[in-house]
Amino acid sequence: MNTENTGKKDERNLYLKNEDLDVAVAKYLALLSFTEAQEKGRLLPVIEAQGWVTKEPVFAKISSPYYNASAMDGICVEAMAMIGVDERHPRTLTKGTDFNFVDTGDVIADPYNAVVMIEDVMIKSDDEISINNPVSLWQNVRPIGEDIVAGELIIPAYHQVRPIDLGALLAGGITELEVMDKPRVGIIPTGTELVEAGAAMAVGKIIDSNTHMFVGLVQEYGGVAKRYQTVRDDYELIKSAIIKAVDENDMVLISAGSSAGTEDYTRKLIEELGEVVVHGVAIKPGKPVVLGIVQGKPVIGIPGYPVSAYFVFESFVKPVMLAFNHQTFTEGVTIKAVLSKRLMSSLKYLEFVRMKCGRVNQRFVATPLDRGAGVTMSLVNADGILKIPKNVEGYEAGEEVELILMRPREEIENTLVSIGSHDVLMDMVANIIHKNKQLVNLSSAHVGSLGGIMAIKKGECHIAPIHLLDEETGTYNLTYLKRYLADEAVVLIKGVKRTQGMIIPKGNPQNIQGIADLVRPEIRFVNRQRGSGTRVLLDYLLKTAQLDTNQVLGYSREMNTHMMVASAVKSGSCDVGIGVLSAANMMALDFIPIGEEAYDFVILKENLDDPRVQIFIQVLKSQEFKEALKRLGGYELEQPGEIVEP
Amino acid sequence: MNTENTGKKDERNLYLKNEDLDVAVAKYLALLSFTEAQEKGRLLPVIEAQGWVTKEPVFAKISSPYYNASAMDGICVEAMAMIGVDERHPRTLTKGTDFNFVDTGDVIADPYNAVVMIEDVMIKSDDEISINNPVSLWQNVRPIGEDIVAGELIIPAYHQVRPIDLGALLAGGITELEVMDKPRVGIIPTGTELVEAGAAMAVGKIIDSNTHMFVGLVQEYGGVAKRYQTVRDDYELIKSAIIKAVDENDMVLISAGSSAGTEDYTRKLIEELGEVVVHGVAIKPGKPVVLGIVQGKPVIGIPGYPVSAYFVFESFVKPVMLAFNHQTFTEGVTIKAVLSKRLMSSLKYLEFVRMKCGRVNQRFVATPLDRGAGVTMSLVNADGILKIPKNVEGYEAGEEVELILMRPREEIENTLVSIGSHDVLMDMVANIIHKNKQLVNLSSAHVGSLGGIMAIKKGECHIAPIHLLDEETGTYNLTYLKRYLADEAVVLIKGVKRTQGMIIPKGNPQNIQGIADLVRPEIRFVNRQRGSGTRVLLDYLLKTAQLDTNQVLGYSREMNTHMMVASAVKSGSCDVGIGVLSAANMMALDFIPIGEEAYDFVILKENLDDPRVQIFIQVLKSQEFKEALKRLGGYELEQPGEIVEP
Repeated sequence: MNTENTGKKDERNLYLKNEDLDVAVAKYLALLSFTEAQEKGRLLPVIEAQGWVTKEPVFAKISSPYYNASAMDGICVEAMAMIGVDERHPRTLTKGTDFNFVDTGDVIADPYNAVVMIEDVMIKSDDEISINNPVSLWQNVRPIGEDIVAGELIIPAYHQVRPIDLGALLAGGITELEVMDKPRVGIIPTGTELVEAGAAMAVGKIIDSNTHMFVGLVQEYGGVAKRYQTVRDDYELIKSAIIKAVDENDMVLISAGSSAGTEDYTRKLIEELGEVVVHGVAIKPGKPVVLGIVQGKPVIGIPGYPVSAYFVFESFVKPVMLAFNHQTFTEGVTIKAVLSKRLMSSLKYLEFVRMKCGRVNQRFVATPLDRGAGVTMSLVNADGILKIPKNVEGYEAGEEVELILMRPREEIENTLVSIGSHDVLMDMVANIIHKNKQLVNLSSAHVGSLGGIMAIKKGECHIAPIHLLDEETGTYNLTYLKRYLADEAVVLIKGVKRTQGMIIPKGNPQNIQGIADLVRPEIRFVNRQRGSGTRVLLDYLLKTAQLDTNQVLGYSREMNTHMMVASAVKSGSCDVGIGVLSAANMMALDFIPIGEEAYDFVILKENLDDPRVQIFIQVLKSQEFKEALKRLGGYELEQPGEIVEP
Repeated sequence: MNTENTGKKDERNLYLKNEDLDVAVAKYLALLSFTEAQEKGRLLPVIEAQGWVTKEPVFAKISSPYYNASAMDGICVEAMAMIGVDERHPRTLTKGTDFNFVDTGDVIADPYNAVVMIEDVMIKSDDEISINNPVSLWQNVRPIGEDIVAGELIIPAYHQVRPIDLGALLAGGITELEVMDKPRVGIIPTGTELVEAGAAMAVGKIIDSNTHMFVGLVQEYGGVAKRYQTVRDDYELIKSAIIKAVDENDMVLISAGSSAGTEDYTRKLIEELGEVVVHGVAIKPGKPVVLGIVQGKPVIGIPGYPVSAYFVFESFVKPVMLAFNHQTFTEGVTIKAVLSKRLMSSLKYLEFVRMKCGRVNQRFVATPLDRGAGVTMSLVNADGILKIPKNVEGYEAGEEVELILMRPREEIENTLVSIGSHDVLMDMVANIIHKNKQLVNLSSAHVGSLGGIMAIKKGECHIAPIHLLDEETGTYNLTYLKRYLADEAVVLIKGVKRTQGMIIPKGNPQNIQGIADLVRPEIRFVNRQRGSGTRVLLDYLLKTAQLDTNQVLGYSREMNTHMMVASAVKSGSCDVGIGVLSAANMMALDFIPIGEEAYDFVILKENLDDPRVQIFIQVLKSQEFKEALKRLGGYELEQPGEIVEP
């Protein structure tokens, strides 16, 4: 996609359809038949069969137990001979004649047909015992086949073998198993701009990461992945690659080029080589998928945006792979959660929204992450996925929704939820918690200080990091608690003092000296989002200096974190931004300090005793934390972890 | 355990404790430290790291995107130069001077700083276009680091790498990863009676299947299993095996010998080599577990009964393995289900009950499977596990309980639940359904015909197979529906006619001719359970012949299936049983026919349209079913699948 685009309209396939997901999948699966590939199969030793899928039902060859066996440690006796024994009529028995000692699993053979447990046996001498309980026929004897009867079905056809199946199969005398082959999935990375991971990066280049994710997903869903060399955007080269991959695999994925751009060849290629069943599905992200069939095999064109690629894999590749081995499509664990904010969605698409989720005040609270198709980290950081159906406008804050979990529920239960201002120290805290083997996760959503206060008010988080300057008093944070959280029993956990300032390129090429430089017409600024403490600080500084925000070029260009501001400066797309010293240090940029501010944590009093919060406070007070901040630079510590009443 | 047991009391360790599961696990984990093993770790290429656990937090090395990139196909322009453009003030632009065509992902570099999507561009010629919408700075441009900012945390320490992480790591410039080693688990099978799977079987021998199940479970939970050769019950030999295994692994499992029998050496051995932390936990099955530490490494003695072994693995080995790599213990998916029958449990133990579960009439209904510790098939067939806590007496029928699922919920939703009489043809039906690629499972619980009728009445199953003789009319099934299900709208799905008779050893050594032979004093009979149609038939025949059940030796010895009766005859533990011809054929036994009976299916009328039921009926009517029964022998078909009103 990196070569010259002439923009000629006739080269564009502007006619993507918008089929419903369910319809598209059903239509596609109905046209696919894997019979030939499936009939091959292979014979495996049972002990290597875990995870493979049976081709035929498996019936036991021998019974288990294989003989009548003692179910207890005790003595074996003849039940008929014990008639009449009870508390008032105990009987003395002689070893070898009337009884024998047996352990669990020992053979019970003629003439013996019952076992008395050792606890009910009174031992008189090495050879004599007495009993005083009645004995019934076959008591405490495991009959032949109690577990598995020869001829009985152990596992059916199309069953994925689990560890417990291995045990039963071996016990039933099965040592080899006819299994279906795993689906072989060929993966073709396409794009002139792609470079392999580890190669030297350059502007205009993109690391091919999607196809490696596909390899991982193929393995996860029981397939065998074959990733081919990257093919540049050339119709004939991609064509050859598809022909080869179709020949060598049961299905083929073509990464990127599935949309309607001038160099999106997938659709045309599949049309030439076979049949396009669907192009364009009403999902977001992931719309420009191509579902094709070449030589009777599924060939799927997957869009290049990583999040689109993931959902297209989950929505189309996974069901096709499962159908290959007759496995049931499963969506995994779901939970009900309360939405922390209104979430609107297009009526035209089924949307997959990545969500953070935590258990706060006895309920799960879910907050949407970045919805961009290019934001891989929204997948990595997601606790769950919310599917907003087509024709649904969205959900209101407070509505209960269902999330498909991306992590174990137990991990989410162990998560300390932080919503508020961003600072890189939050990552440090998370790592120190982990390093000390505490199974507590710290989930940080960056919505700015005021957003954090609102989240506390609405019961959506445990802690809210804030750094809010009271313009009138010049103090930090406490007055905001009185103003916005007067009705709540809240306290402040003391955090750090950190240095805010202007982040500028190394060497200060634009000779920026202070806040007044922001209105110079050639200076390109990058701002933080509304509601962030840093934005409040900037506005205070501009107002104090009597500067007009309209004169600041880039005032409306908003970034959500200190690191993104630093990154924008580093990239040269702006000349200055405002942020903390640690971010400037991490990017090796220059820095003009503006002042120190208090970065603290609001918390509901009632949550102070929560074990997750206690661990958080311990870390704030730790030597490890102190040292980590020293390495970052730009922080002062005054009694971190101390509780302050507003 | 197969050698001579002298029964001497001083050789037995009768003093197992009964510690609570949670207490035992916490106590054990608190004493374990894996630091040395964990600190080793290894460096892996990212693309091989799936499933491994990170040792350190991973921070991005480069930003993604690596440059300001177009987010759309369209044209790039200078935003400042477009001020004033709107519907009423369109602007014509010249290529190369005012704009350039770009595809998604293309570089946006000076002087350009915004992208107009192609759909909003009117193309006038190859070099001229016009636009009529306002353009804002950085519109449709993905800034450097929009996805990942260099220096940002991608994944924390102790994180198990997933496919989506691979994508993010590679995009963030990471190609190698420090991971923790997987826990190495040594597995020692012990027992003089053990033989390897595939070896010739003999009475008194047991196939070692448990340790292969352990190998599978170790792999499933992210470990590396090393299974050692079987060691016979010899104190010194087992001791050497433990010393070697401790030396070569991070933890060791000793299979069997963990109880208090004369040849249960595990406890004494661990005491000699290290420390026994716990012996005996209040769980059922699984009580006689030994939790020990040798050379600082966990050594666990696991009981020999397969179901005990499984739950001990899940309860103790799994948490230790997860702790090794700092992973969260998860129990998986749970559902709420209604109990179909009363379920009592000892107050002294936490009990793990294996349950069948199906969705019948809009609710999940759960029925306990065999609770014996030796019944592996109860695990294989389980849909879920019900944990009955210690100090809980049990649950009443109709109570809602929580099951930990053993299969995907979707599979349970697709299950046709059959409760009632047993016939081997049910396995055939299940396989034909599968073979025709229908993702419907058939779950059969064998509780006898009358039990089936009760299950229909209580809404616990979709279909109930029955074969009930009306002694007065000599007819089958329909009169029972009138008698027991008068208040329900039920119908009968016609099944088969099958031949019942006396199952006897090949050659009829006892010269059995008819029902009257059952009261011969030397004839050992094996019966079916109360409520089974076959029991009803037997009682009818005995009554008709005026024979006394008290005179039938073994009348009270009950088996739950035809196959178990045939198996008992085959084993020589009885001389005769009653059952169907197909079971006798499968075991190559002789057979004296008694008569033909109708084996049909009761169903609520309202469930007739259920797709699962429709598929079942289709199979009954199929040629495939006819042929399968022909191969089994002993069946006649008269309009199977036909619906009959009572």
